[in-house]
Amino acid sequence: MAIKRKKVSVIGGGFTGATTALMVAQKELADVVLVDIPDMEDPTKGKALDMLEASPIQGYDAKITGTANYEDTQDSDIVIITAGIARKPGMSRDDLVNTNAKIMKSVTKDIVKYSPNTAIIVLTNPVDAMTYTIFKESGLPKERVIGQSGVLDTARFNTFVAEELNISVKDITGFVLGGHGDDMVPLIRYSFAGGIPLQKLISKDRLDAIVERTRKGGGEIVGLLGNGSAYYAPAASLTVMTEAILKDQRRLLPTIAYLEGEYGYSNIYLGVPTIIGGNGLEEIIELDLTDEEKAALDNSAKSVKNVLSVLE
Amino acid sequence: MAIKRKKVSVIGGGFTGATTALMVAQKELADVVLVDIPDMEDPTKGKALDMLEASPIQGYDAKITGTANYEDTQDSDIVIITAGIARKPGMSRDDLVNTNAKIMKSVTKDIVKYSPNTAIIVLTNPVDAMTYTIFKESGLPKERVIGQSGVLDTARFNTFVAEELNISVKDITGFVLGGHGDDMVPLIRYSFAGGIPLQKLISKDRLDAIVERTRKGGGEIVGLLGNGSAYYAPAASLTVMTEAILKDQRRLLPTIAYLEGEYGYSNIYLGVPTIIGGNGLEEIIELDLTDEEKAALDNSAKSVKNVLSVLE
Amino acid sequence: MAIKRKKVSVIGGGFTGATTALMVAQKELADVVLVDIPDMEDPTKGKALDMLEASPIQGYDAKITGTANYEDTQDSDIVIITAGIARKPGMSRDDLVNTNAKIMKSVTKDIVKYSPNTAIIVLTNPVDAMTYTIFKESGLPKERVIGQSGVLDTARFNTFVAEELNISVKDITGFVLGGHGDDMVPLIRYSFAGGIPLQKLISKDRLDAIVERTRKGGGEIVGLLGNGSAYYAPAASLTVMTEAILKDQRRLLPTIAYLEGEYGYSNIYLGVPTIIGGNGLEEIIELDLTDEEKAALDNSAKSVKNVLSVLE
Amino acid sequence: MAIKRKKVSVIGGGFTGATTALMVAQKELADVVLVDIPDMEDPTKGKALDMLEASPIQGYDAKITGTANYEDTQDSDIVIITAGIARKPGMSRDDLVNTNAKIMKSVTKDIVKYSPNTAIIVLTNPVDAMTYTIFKESGLPKERVIGQSGVLDTARFNTFVAEELNISVKDITGFVLGGHGDDMVPLIRYSFAGGIPLQKLISKDRLDAIVERTRKGGGEIVGLLGNGSAYYAPAASLTVMTEAILKDQRRLLPTIAYLEGEYGYSNIYLGVPTIIGGNGLEEIIELDLTDEEKAALDNSAKSVKNVLSVLE
Repeated sequence: MAIKRKKVSVIGGGFTGATTALMVAQKELADVVLVDIPDMEDPTKGKALDMLEASPIQGYDAKITGTANYEDTQDSDIVIITAGIARKPGMSRDDLVNTNAKIMKSVTKDIVKYSPNTAIIVLTNPVDAMTYTIFKESGLPKERVIGQSGVLDTARFNTFVAEELNISVKDITGFVLGGHGDDMVPLIRYSFAGGIPLQKLISKDRLDAIVERTRKGGGEIVGLLGNGSAYYAPAASLTVMTEAILKDQRRLLPTIAYLEGEYGYSNIYLGVPTIIGGNGLEEIIELDLTDEEKAALDNSAKSVKNVLSVLE
Repeated sequence: MAIKRKKVSVIGGGFTGATTALMVAQKELADVVLVDIPDMEDPTKGKALDMLEASPIQGYDAKITGTANYEDTQDSDIVIITAGIARKPGMSRDDLVNTNAKIMKSVTKDIVKYSPNTAIIVLTNPVDAMTYTIFKESGLPKERVIGQSGVLDTARFNTFVAEELNISVKDITGFVLGGHGDDMVPLIRYSFAGGIPLQKLISKDRLDAIVERTRKGGGEIVGLLGNGSAYYAPAASLTVMTEAILKDQRRLLPTIAYLEGEYGYSNIYLGVPTIIGGNGLEEIIELDLTDEEKAALDNSAKSVKNVLSVLE
Repeated sequence: MAIKRKKVSVIGGGFTGATTALMVAQKELADVVLVDIPDMEDPTKGKALDMLEASPIQGYDAKITGTANYEDTQDSDIVIITAGIARKPGMSRDDLVNTNAKIMKSVTKDIVKYSPNTAIIVLTNPVDAMTYTIFKESGLPKERVIGQSGVLDTARFNTFVAEELNISVKDITGFVLGGHGDDMVPLIRYSFAGGIPLQKLISKDRLDAIVERTRKGGGEIVGLLGNGSAYYAPAASLTVMTEAILKDQRRLLPTIAYLEGEYGYSNIYLGVPTIIGGNGLEEIIELDLTDEEKAALDNSAKSVKNVLSVLE
Repeated sequence: MAIKRKKVSVIGGGFTGATTALMVAQKELADVVLVDIPDMEDPTKGKALDMLEASPIQGYDAKITGTANYEDTQDSDIVIITAGIARKPGMSRDDLVNTNAKIMKSVTKDIVKYSPNTAIIVLTNPVDAMTYTIFKESGLPKERVIGQSGVLDTARFNTFVAEELNISVKDITGFVLGGHGDDMVPLIRYSFAGGIPLQKLISKDRLDAIVERTRKGGGEIVGLLGNGSAYYAPAASLTVMTEAILKDQRRLLPTIAYLEGEYGYSNIYLGVPTIIGGNGLEEIIELDLTDEEKAALDNSAKSVKNVLSVLE
């Protein structure tokens, strides 16, 4: 009958993984195990220890450990996957996909071996295909394998809108469907500032520019950093999805979910509005789309299918 | 050059005033002075001390003091007014209005004597008329005298919607214009769950019932309590407006603001969408209304004018 | 495998019970059921609804319900008991004890019927005797029945010290053993500001005055309020003990615990330093006491025994 | 009379600087300007934008910007200095000191040009000497130039103690005097778990090992990371000192402060217990030391003097 603290394992001890571990610990959602490959075990332990040493000052109580041994992930409630490589110059997209898919398969085997009932949240790109790969490999029900992209895309959109209007980000509600990046389908008519439709507050030109900036949001950070990609906002996105599950919040969040007929697609992972709660994916919400929106979503689905075809 | 902690005075040490003091302190927004009449000085001191004694446990650092002496409110950044009487059986509405107006005038004199540059946030009912009274009495610019009703009304609406949909309150965005209570103008078309218009998710019948329940929201609590009226949600509403000013957040919040031509009304306080920041009222946002909405808002304004006429 | 939100029931919907419900909800520790007798069902429902309506504004996601039906407490993880009567003029202490003991027995029966594995935290006075009564009635292991007094007494002590030194309450660590009120045993030599022993910072006279004020801390609030007793700091105390269990924190907190030989006492509930975690009471920490401290603790134990003897 | 948001500038956009910016923003203490050299302007802007994009998800409202232009730091309330180089293989200690001192002087000139009344908190190593350099260069009063090391050292000590005792870090209070690293003077007799002296809870051998591990705490992380040094706990330390000033908390924190006779030293910066509040350094607290402690502190002071002599 004793209450046991929740456990979250984060696969990939790079910037995103480490920042996710920090944010999960700051909210006291769970103890955190940060996992990387044996070659990176020491740096991963170092980051974990550094975060643990921040805890008396920040006031959170969470054990954070670094490891290269999957045994330490045993009985995780949630596993977050940030591992994988980024595309290098000269590398074909297909090579990227297949390399990361191989990593996903290996990682998944190790995860489910020690946590056969865990939920898995995936960030590794291309995220729709990687989530699909993990779903197939894991044997877990679709409720327990989801991917992140829409929370991040929406956050970027909201940030740009808040800046444009010079009002608090707390009062902006954006809405993004479909895939990540160029295939993203922002639904302007479902996007608001304090409940007021953005079209009433921002000119079409400026709104188009914001949508375009959102689409290229990941690239903007990559371009500025010069070396590496965004990690603060991705980590925050993973954390909010983790919180929704661990606190059984039934939040209405955009999620990369497995579709079985919803929106007319099947056997595919795609970004759709969902309810996330204690079961993981609790519900997919189907919206009526305009023809234009449906066409954009079709496009998004086609891109995902293309990537998946590389895998077979 | 030294940094001084902010100061908030709360006039009225009843349940609402005390709960507001607690919530302001919990967020470490400011030191808090809780003020009541001399007869109530000891209980007010008792509540303040009790809250102060909770601070080492809750982890907030804020001085909270009770007093009946307005000198203690000197140099407040914000004064929150919750004082006033509730309507008693047999009391006419006009008597209520005039009694509370008299209290408002007296209280305002004391406030501006010691804090000539404060912002004032008013909760006392009938709130539109009381905010007007305080504005006139204080000589403060309209930016610095505002009233609360829409944040509370919206919160109630959001609560009922979250319950209806069984999703997190974190993802509901409602929108309420106009006066408090029966004159409230909920804008359903500006109300959403995770960005999705409520009409897509809830039947018209159920939505109508939710709107009606929101309108009677104050009365529902009064009916249940048997003796007294709501204080937790009102206190939370006052606190969020206080936070928006003290942290200069430029939040988009519904506020009872002084109109000078906006929405076609003048020399009146009415609930409208606004930007609240370091200046207090920073902006009033004018929306295009449908004929039906405009008629409802006219109705709301007429009610307020009626109450004001009692005062003259 | 789904994750279910935790559940806390609070017995007694008065000021302390309601404030505890608020604080538990604010921290998103659990859903909360506030329970009172049938005559008070409506006001209890009213308070719960009012708190729920504050949640969209304060940003917490927790279901809060009011009830007079213990069935609604089913499968609680923790039950907090604040019910009971206060001593009225003309009432003998023995009458008070027996009346509250009767209430405790009745309440306990209802609790364990619906939550046979819950932990119980008791606030009702005289708290040592009431915790004992509940322990005996419930049939629960001693790990899962504990009482609160030392967290509150320590918080009061810390508050007075912070005021005396004009430093943040965040940096004061006091230490109180033994019973509540006059029987309290503050251990000055274990009390510090930022790690510095208080004797180095405060004169003996002033320290004695602070200890005396702490001893009479409850009475000071009662005297000021005129009608009723403290509830903010008691609620905060109950909440931090609840958090320690629900988050399995293994906090070192003073707790009213069942002794089986520790400190030389048996078959008695007394305030001692303990570790509180996922099992409830995880450990009792035995300190070496000076002769003076041991005598004071003996005194405290004798008082508790006296009260217990009234029960038999 | 309008309220303006506070402003914090962080000099050095590396891991520590960026993590400090994040933590200051998460607590909504101020808007944050992250500053680095022109060559690093784009990555600094990238990190700042990424953090800003996390804000709608994490729920904080703070502008975060990256820049290489000190004009953007204008009117900062606090400037935090993390800039400087780390010792490279083959570099003498004297070279390190003089290189960083040169950086400190240049940075300080730019800071005070735009924020002549700011407070400055220094992290760059060797921190005692660098704080001294900045103090002399800035012309600011000693109250407004302080250095960080003791908060971090204490946090590491507390972490190790919590682990040893298997109790929450929330209940450990350590105490460290003197310089950073090997010159650190942990005061075991002022270190506690829930108020209980550690000597009662941990064997001398284990305590000695913990002290030793604390002394080498920075090196432990460096060794694990392989490339670079700790940043999470240092950032948390800088943030808590920033909070103490911006919220005028009068916290009792170990600080590297300018001594004018305290503890028998003059014209030197050394780690001592202090009160930190709205004025910056509000007070230095002088403790009676044992002969052994005094000898250790002398040693610490001698080390600092040695480093300072390199500068002249």
